[in-house]
Amino acid sequence: MEQTREQEIQERIQLSETKMIKCVFPDTTNHYNTLFGGTALNWMDEVAFITATRFSRKKMVTVSLDKTDFQKPIPGGSFADIHGIVTQVGNKSLKVQVQIFIEQMYSNKRELAVSGTFSMVALNEQGKTTSVI
Amino acid sequence: MEQTREQEIQERIQLSETKMIKCVFPDTTNHYNTLFGGTALNWMDEVAFITATRFSRKKMVTVSLDKTDFQKPIPGGSFADIHGIVTQVGNKSLKVQVQIFIEQMYSNKRELAVSGTFSMVALNEQGKTTSVI
Amino acid sequence: MEQTREQEIQERIQLSETKMIKCVFPDTTNHYNTLFGGTALNWMDEVAFITATRFSRKKMVTVSLDKTDFQKPIPGGSFADIHGIVTQVGNKSLKVQVQIFIEQMYSNKRELAVSGTFSMVALNEQGKTTSVI
Amino acid sequence: MEQTREQEIQERIQLSETKMIKCVFPDTTNHYNTLFGGTALNWMDEVAFITATRFSRKKMVTVSLDKTDFQKPIPGGSFADIHGIVTQVGNKSLKVQVQIFIEQMYSNKRELAVSGTFSMVALNEQGKTTSVI
Amino acid sequence: MEQTREQEIQERIQLSETKMIKCVFPDTTNHYNTLFGGTALNWMDEVAFITATRFSRKKMVTVSLDKTDFQKPIPGGSFADIHGIVTQVGNKSLKVQVQIFIEQMYSNKRELAVSGTFSMVALNEQGKTTSVI
Amino acid sequence: MEQTREQEIQERIQLSETKMIKCVFPDTTNHYNTLFGGTALNWMDEVAFITATRFSRKKMVTVSLDKTDFQKPIPGGSFADIHGIVTQVGNKSLKVQVQIFIEQMYSNKRELAVSGTFSMVALNEQGKTTSVI
Repeated sequence: MEQTREQEIQERIQLSETKMIKCVFPDTTNHYNTLFGGTALNWMDEVAFITATRFSRKKMVTVSLDKTDFQKPIPGGSFADIHGIVTQVGNKSLKVQVQIFIEQMYSNKRELAVSGTFSMVALNEQGKTTSVI
Repeated sequence: MEQTREQEIQERIQLSETKMIKCVFPDTTNHYNTLFGGTALNWMDEVAFITATRFSRKKMVTVSLDKTDFQKPIPGGSFADIHGIVTQVGNKSLKVQVQIFIEQMYSNKRELAVSGTFSMVALNEQGKTTSVI
Repeated sequence: MEQTREQEIQERIQLSETKMIKCVFPDTTNHYNTLFGGTALNWMDEVAFITATRFSRKKMVTVSLDKTDFQKPIPGGSFADIHGIVTQVGNKSLKVQVQIFIEQMYSNKRELAVSGTFSMVALNEQGKTTSVI
Repeated sequence: MEQTREQEIQERIQLSETKMIKCVFPDTTNHYNTLFGGTALNWMDEVAFITATRFSRKKMVTVSLDKTDFQKPIPGGSFADIHGIVTQVGNKSLKVQVQIFIEQMYSNKRELAVSGTFSMVALNEQGKTTSVI
Repeated sequence: MEQTREQEIQERIQLSETKMIKCVFPDTTNHYNTLFGGTALNWMDEVAFITATRFSRKKMVTVSLDKTDFQKPIPGGSFADIHGIVTQVGNKSLKVQVQIFIEQMYSNKRELAVSGTFSMVALNEQGKTTSVI
Repeated sequence: MEQTREQEIQERIQLSETKMIKCVFPDTTNHYNTLFGGTALNWMDEVAFITATRFSRKKMVTVSLDKTDFQKPIPGGSFADIHGIVTQVGNKSLKVQVQIFIEQMYSNKRELAVSGTFSMVALNEQGKTTSVI
């Protein structure tokens, strides 16, 4: 019996979930000793790209970053745990939600700090958009 | 005769306009030899922060990044010219539009590549939101 | 009924498992277009530190890096998926095994590229070694 | 009526003026919490290269950096505003003056911190010096 | 009279000794204000690669890093002086010992901080192991 | 018998000679695949600072960089060997000559690529210039 497209999508979503954790050391902070927003966006884009590529196994490019909320500053000396998951799948595009959690070093406390959604398209070898699956 | 708030705002908008230009060298590119999106976002956030701080001369933090469009890839070996301008001023928050233009090295050709809008708030010394002017 | 030390250790090992994935872009490669070994070691040390800190929730420092094997070069344009897991727990020290897997972008192929084991000790506020749990 | 060489030069000088502003965050400072001199020189060279390239729209290389004065340390938590302008034009070479201004974040105060002059030549496709215009 | 292989090796060992000194500035430290271990390993690998390449003048790759000891933390605001020397020469492989010394800025005091040994092989143009001399 | 100031200076010059070698990998190059001039200046400033500090063991700051000549481009895939030596000693200032040599990886060939001279002063704890010895 054939796997439906929906089952295929669900399976790919699971397999493409991506985690990247980083130490918030001085080379990533601003003069308030919190993570510089630009560094946060840089890491989020890397995670979005990996999540989308793992889903499609095709060349993926970002077309837009939807509203991104910076809810809490991420203090120096904590961990930034970045998660990416595919949340919507179209024919030639998909959406990846990326969240950054603050994880304290010396307690189990975790809080959501930043979240945003990236829209990405798949390109074929001619650079034309193509199906994501 | 007193300067109106509107005049004050227009004057500050002009004074706070910000430009940062960068060479797209290999330390900023992905494996397609175009500017890595995360690097682009990193530069945009730095320009947004500077533009907002110049406008307010207060401690500014990013609360959100509205829809950001990646219209064209920025090739290695070109310049990325990043411009920031305050486009909207509220009581305790303002919006900064940031655009990246591709400028070719060996011709005058320029094109818009990325644009986004950052919402930022002013904080006082107690970390509470305060008026941006 | 009390949880035994062994159960506590098993639970902490699971909770402290750590993943960090990175794109192998030009800013991380040598002139053979493979990941520079020093960058690999840098990422492994970051993952070891996070894994150990998550296990202990105390100040952890690396005392040694046991034999590390570089089994395969990691090509530019692939992902480096770095995993850390606590493999041995003593009174005041623990061992974290860190592995880097090459994950291809455009296929599901994965291979072990580098593995090493870090020995870490817990320090108290006076800078003396202390129990890891 | 033809534009004279002198008019052409004046026009190009205006069009090639270049600005790059940077935040002085911990990843750019030394252990005195002032901008590391090497980072300052790095930014100045980037601005000199862009200014010269914009003037000529040819391949430009630095042949020398004339006397550079470090007049004031640039404190962490300020902006470094770097300006480049072509100040002298020969047949096959030109000079670019680059200045760094300290701009405080929470006042309009600006001061000159560093200035230097770069001599650059234009190269043709064979790598020989060629006219800058 | 011909130079023996042993003499050749001794001469090459002397010529390949390598030194790299670095300032421990904030872009290299962790949140304890000591050199991040990953940065230390990164520098050691660079020195090992240069030492081995200078010895062989062939393409060298690291196959393993033997036990590395972190004996002392390297404080921010000191120098890290990294030395590499070939300590063992086989047919197709060699060993490079790399040590990092803490050198204080404002006294002559020096101490060994980290030491490790890298095993490296020479590769020919087909990517096969070849003699190191 | 007392050591003369001249002997003291000669001894300090020898002890303060400084070497830093770097691989020219893609994270240091421009789009011509040669070492970016700004990176070269950055390394030279670091070596000048270390050489001067080793000579004086006091807080040293750069006051100027005299004429710096870029004689040859440094190709990607080579080593950049940077040497610093004190060449002139005044009461409160000294000069450090810094040279970068290109060292090829697969031959013993070495050539001078860049040279410059840094003028540095010693500061006491009040930030006033003080004797360098």
